[in-house]
Order: sequence, then C-alpha cells, then structure tokens
Amino acid sequence: MPNNPAATVAAAVTATVTAPTAVTAAAPLDIPRGLAGVVVTETALGDVRGQEGFYHYRQYSAVELARTRGFEDVWYLLVHGELPDRAGGDAFAARVAPLRRLPDEVRAALPAIAAATGPAGPLAGLRTALSLLGAASGFRPLYDIDPDRRRADTLAACAAVPTLLTALYRLGRGLEPVEPREDLPYAANYLYMLTGSEPDAARARAVEQYLISTIDHGFNASTFTARVIASTGADVAACLVGAVGALSGPLHGGAPSRALDTLDAIGTPERIDPWIRARVLAGERVMGFGHAVYRTEDPRSRMLRDIAQGFGGSLVDFAVEVEHRVEAILAELKPGRELHTNVEFYAGVVMELCGLPREMFTPTFAAARVVGWSANILEQAQDSKIIRPSARYVGPVPPVAVPEAA
Amino acid sequence: MPNNPAATVAAAVTATVTAPTAVTAAAPLDIPRGLAGVVVTETALGDVRGQEGFYHYRQYSAVELARTRGFEDVWYLLVHGELPDRAGGDAFAARVAPLRRLPDEVRAALPAIAAATGPAGPLAGLRTALSLLGAASGFRPLYDIDPDRRRADTLAACAAVPTLLTALYRLGRGLEPVEPREDLPYAANYLYMLTGSEPDAARARAVEQYLISTIDHGFNASTFTARVIASTGADVAACLVGAVGALSGPLHGGAPSRALDTLDAIGTPERIDPWIRARVLAGERVMGFGHAVYRTEDPRSRMLRDIAQGFGGSLVDFAVEVEHRVEAILAELKPGRELHTNVEFYAGVVMELCGLPREMFTPTFAAARVVGWSANILEQAQDSKIIRPSARYVGPVPPVAVPEAA
Repeated sequence: MPNNPAATVAAAVTATVTAPTAVTAAAPLDIPRGLAGVVVTETALGDVRGQEGFYHYRQYSAVELARTRGFEDVWYLLVHGELPDRAGGDAFAARVAPLRRLPDEVRAALPAIAAATGPAGPLAGLRTALSLLGAASGFRPLYDIDPDRRRADTLAACAAVPTLLTALYRLGRGLEPVEPREDLPYAANYLYMLTGSEPDAARARAVEQYLISTIDHGFNASTFTARVIASTGADVAACLVGAVGALSGPLHGGAPSRALDTLDAIGTPERIDPWIRARVLAGERVMGFGHAVYRTEDPRSRMLRDIAQGFGGSLVDFAVEVEHRVEAILAELKPGRELHTNVEFYAGVVMELCGLPREMFTPTFAAARVVGWSANILEQAQDSKIIRPSARYVGPVPPVAVPEAA
Repeated sequence: MPNNPAATVAAAVTATVTAPTAVTAAAPLDIPRGLAGVVVTETALGDVRGQEGFYHYRQYSAVELARTRGFEDVWYLLVHGELPDRAGGDAFAARVAPLRRLPDEVRAALPAIAAATGPAGPLAGLRTALSLLGAASGFRPLYDIDPDRRRADTLAACAAVPTLLTALYRLGRGLEPVEPREDLPYAANYLYMLTGSEPDAARARAVEQYLISTIDHGFNASTFTARVIASTGADVAACLVGAVGALSGPLHGGAPSRALDTLDAIGTPERIDPWIRARVLAGERVMGFGHAVYRTEDPRSRMLRDIAQGFGGSLVDFAVEVEHRVEAILAELKPGRELHTNVEFYAGVVMELCGLPREMFTPTFAAARVVGWSANILEQAQDSKIIRPSARYVGPVPPVAVPEAA
C-alpha cells in the first residue's frame, strides 16, 4: 500500500500518470495516499476555507444562509445556482412539498424493509429505501435525460428522504408511519413525521438551521462517491445510495451522537478534568473536538452553540463547561495544537434539545446532505467523462501456468 | 470543467496537489479529466495488458483459469490470494453453497421489492436487495471487524447474488422463486434457479467460463466506487451497492445485450455490408466492437467465440460472419484503426445460446463481477486511509451578502 507522510500532502508533488495500457510500469506511486489534497474537479457549489473558519454555498456564507433563510431557499440555491425571490421560493416549496408522499409501492415495501434492517440501523434502511424509491419512481440514467428531468429526479429523492427515515424509524418501533404534511416547511414536517405532533417554532427553526448548515461542506468522501457514480451516467438513486453508503463509514465523520455520548460518559462537572486528562494522556481522541480542515473554531459549531444557548438548560451549561475545560486542558497538554469543538459537538446538543432520538442524529445529517449530494450529481452530469483512474499491479509477475487441482 | 486532450494522458504530467485548506488556489486543474491513467493505488489482484491482449487474476492468465478451473476455485484465488488444492476447493465450495439461501426477512421482502422495481430493471432490484441483505445479515463496518469476518461478509453477499437476481426476475413475471440447490456449482445453480430445471453440462460450463472471465478486469469505475466506499470503513453491502450503481451507468460498459441487439438489427447475411457501412460512414459506433484498453483482439472475446462455436448453429455462424465483415469494412474505411470484437459481442451470443433472457445479461455480468468487487474491498480495507480528494471552487468570489427575500 502506498504510504505518503502527511507532510508531502501540503506540497506540490509530481503525480505519476500513465496510459491505461501501461499501469504496470515500475515507477513508484507518488500521488498522495487517499488522493489527499489532489484537486480532481472544479465546482461552483461551494468551498471550505479552513484557515479562516469559513465555508460557503455558491457565493454566500453558509452560516449566514442558515441564520437568514429557510431550508427550501438554500436547496433552491444549490440546485438552481441562485437564491430565489419570495415568489420563486414559495413556488419551489410548493413544488417539492407534494413529493414528500411516497409512491404506493414504496410505502407497501417499507414494513418488510424495516423488519429486515432493524439491527443494522437507519442508514442501512435509508440506503435500501432510497434505492427502491428511485426504481419505483422510474429514475432514468443521467445521460439519457435532460437537465430538467435530472433535477426533478433529485427533488423527488430529497423530498422523500425525511418520509423514508421517519417511516422506517416508526415501523421499527411498532408505530404507524405519520403521513407528511404539505403545509409545513421541510424541517418542521420532518419533526412532525417523527413524533406525530407539530413541533414548536423554536425547535423547528433550530433543526432547520442545523439542516441548512449541513447541506454541503467541501469535497468529502460521500460527495466524491456520488460524483464517481454520476460520471458513469447512472441514475440519481444509484448515486445517492452510494453516497449514503460512504456516509455510513466510521472514517467519514458526521456522527453527532458520538460527542453526546462523550458528555454522558463524563457525567458531572467535577469529573470533566480527570476524564479529559486521562483521555488526552492516553493519546485518545476526544469525540467532538478537532477537524481535518478547520484551524480555527468550526463556524457551524459557533452557530449551533448560539442556538443551544438560546434554549439554555443544564445540558447546554454542561456542554459549554466541557468545551472550555477541554480547550484549556488541550492548550496545557498539547500546546500549539489548535483543537476546538467540531460540528458534531453542538449539533448533538441541539438535536437532543429538539427531541430527536440519538440514533436519528446521523440520519438527520443525511436528510440535509442529500441536497448537497444532489447538487454535486447535477454538476457532475454536465461533464461527460467517466471518472476511472488506474491501479498499479504489484503482485507476482504473470503469467504463471495454472496448476492442476491436486 | 477540466478538459485535457487525450494525448496528455499517455505522458507523465504534473498533478496539482494542494493542502485541503488551499483548494481555492488559482493554479489550473491539470490532472487528466476523469483521473484517466492516474495511478491511485496498488493492487495484487490483477491487471490488463492492452497491447498484448492479456489480462490476469493474481499471477494467472484469467482465460487460462476460465478454461481449466471452476468458478469457486477462482473466487477462492481472488479473496484468499492463492489457488486452492482439491480439498481446499471442495471445502470452500461447501462453505459458500449454503450461503445461497436468503435470510427469511430478505426473502419476505422480495415480492415488495420486485413489485416496486419492476420497470427499472434488474440492476435496480439487485441494488435494493443487496442493500437489504447486508442489513439483515448484520454486516458490520469494515474497520470494526477482523479480516476473517470481512471475508465472511463478502462470501455471504456474493453467494446470495444469484439467488436475489433470479428470485426478483421470477417474481417480476408472476413466478415463484426457485430455492437454491447446494449440490450444484455456482453457475449451474444460477441457471437452475432462473429456469427451474437443471441445465445440461455444456451450458452450465459455458456460463461458468463466462462468469470466471468476468470476475475482474482492471480498475473500472464500479471497482473504484467500491474502493472509495470501503475506504470510509463502511460495510460490505454499502460498498457493493455503490458498485452496482456505477455498473448501471451507460458509460460503464458491460452490457452484452447491446451487441446482440445489433445482430438482430442487421437480421440477415446480405444486410451485413450495407448496414455496417451506413453505420461507419455516419460515424456511429458499432456495438460489440472496440475497447478502451485492448489494441488487439479482446482475449475474452476469443475464448467466448470458441465456446460459441462449440455449440454451433445459425446464430453463431451469423455472428462470426458479422465479425469478419465488420473487421474487413473497418479496415477498408478506417485503415490503421485496430477494431475487434469486445467481450460484449460473443458474451451475448453465449448467453443467448445458454437460454439466458436478454434482460439478465448485465445482471449475470454482475453475478461474476461481485466477486471482483469483493476482492477489491478486502484489499482496500487493509489500508486505513480514506479516499478523499479535493475540488477547486470556481464560482463567484464569496462572501457576497445574502440578499433579503423580496
């Protein structure tokens, strides 16, 4: 396996590029492992500026969008390329709300899917149900349809994700799914379908802001997966199902429940210092702290802390205290390292305050990120080049004669 | 979108590699589009030598393996790294045969999946059912389990693919699924479950040889997809479902029915010349001819033609005549271009002769390739580095203040 020290990632290096017919050439593999830092495409969807603690969708600050706009407006921005005016936003919201209702054949299959996926968790259920939805909805290969039809397929998929997630969650607990309501915005309807009762405005808006802030965040592994599959011309469901699969990997990130589990494990204020010190001295990671890209505070974390503090209460006070103590202890034990809370930390707190069950934290993340994946799929579909790199064979030199079975 | 002339692919070029925090740098994107020819990993699984018309699994000629061994032996070679002796091969076959039976919850869900996927075709059904199987079988994230357990999950998935495909096919036609038989080899059992009657030895062996020759073939887009998802540590089903999605894309290839459709369209020997000339002069592709990598005859094509000629009959005679006339006409109209039949051409003929319905040609391809994907997933899981490249933002410079909705 290739093994490049992280230091080389930061510098410009020479990548070995060979013709497909010459991949067994003897040159060393000197592209960074995992393609880290290798720019493989251009995008107009957004970016992350790690040094500045800033990220954006199109030309707008993502956090500012979350603070000032509704989910549907930002969804429109990602897939149409511009913010809608009020009439355009209302028309878009009215277009996507009816898509929350599932096709009858999908609804009929959900109890069997819920029964079979039970122990594997809701992302495996979403992966299955989204695959089925695409098939039942007649999604066509990207390269066989025009941009309007492609966009329509992404809208159908995204609008259905909260319905699928909440139905599978409820069926897994012996509860009837709650039919979607078209009169509620995306986030409020999600909470409504989960619990069966209409959420209060503050909680609906808090979840909406979290969802907006989660739609996209640079070129992560699930986004790349969606684009690789899109580059074959496969249908929108094929791309999204692959992305959900990548999101389910432990190295992907996006698991806000882990940080909340840390708060639970610490338990009480007086246990913060010994617990954190033992962790840090043992060289273990403290979940909810540190980010691969941000060298400053994660801008999502700042926004979500504000939201949490708007609610107040003992969990929020405890979380803020843990944050301060962890930063102080890390500054003492690992001076020079910039380690702040990442999005998982306060996202978990906010979702807990809004009544989301912990096993639905990552699925809720997916309910927002599916819009970002969709925008990436639509952008990739404008290219007509399959993403197909090469591998170098490093095994014993062939041909060796096949031995007879003996 | 980046646009590199194909000529640059053949030469070593300098790739732009930037730190993740600096992806907005102004340098041009000069890695080849689609990562064409970029060596992104090392593999000991096999390779394709396009100039020589040769490909191999591990150190053995794939065609020689297909001519001399059974499917289970080659499957063992891919996932264990060496060919089994007779006792080892028998033990492996006895281990995987019972895995053909589906978990009860999956079997119970198949009618609903078949009803919902009907018009979308069998790959969308496989994508859904394989996702469900992984969940129902309790597949765990790759990075949470040891290599034996990872391998066991791939065996369970691969062994179930023919059962899933044939059950969905039959349910879609109002037929009861046929339960797998453990006393038949992989290929014979596949044909048995499809038709309900035991195939004759020649047809079972022909399909087995096709399946062996299809297990792997260089680093294609579905294989890369499986490895990207595996690099996040996701479970085997997540990886395979993504790969099935990529395979379903029209640019991926692997659609042997298209070549047979060409034979049908030509219809009779006297129509060959005018039909082919009209196509070539119009600049259209003749399906079943030409390959991105091979500059000689496709070695799979040669083997499959031999198999087809062993059966004989009017379809085979017609196919051979079309092959000769197409090559002669291409040599006349496009001199210097090496264009031969690719794997699709005679694969379609062989599958037709063996009684496979045309819509099952690509699913049959998937029933073999799933073993190759699995071997790639297991190899990728030995690495612990997520595959996460970067994109360069090329939109309007942020931040632009978010306008009020008006």
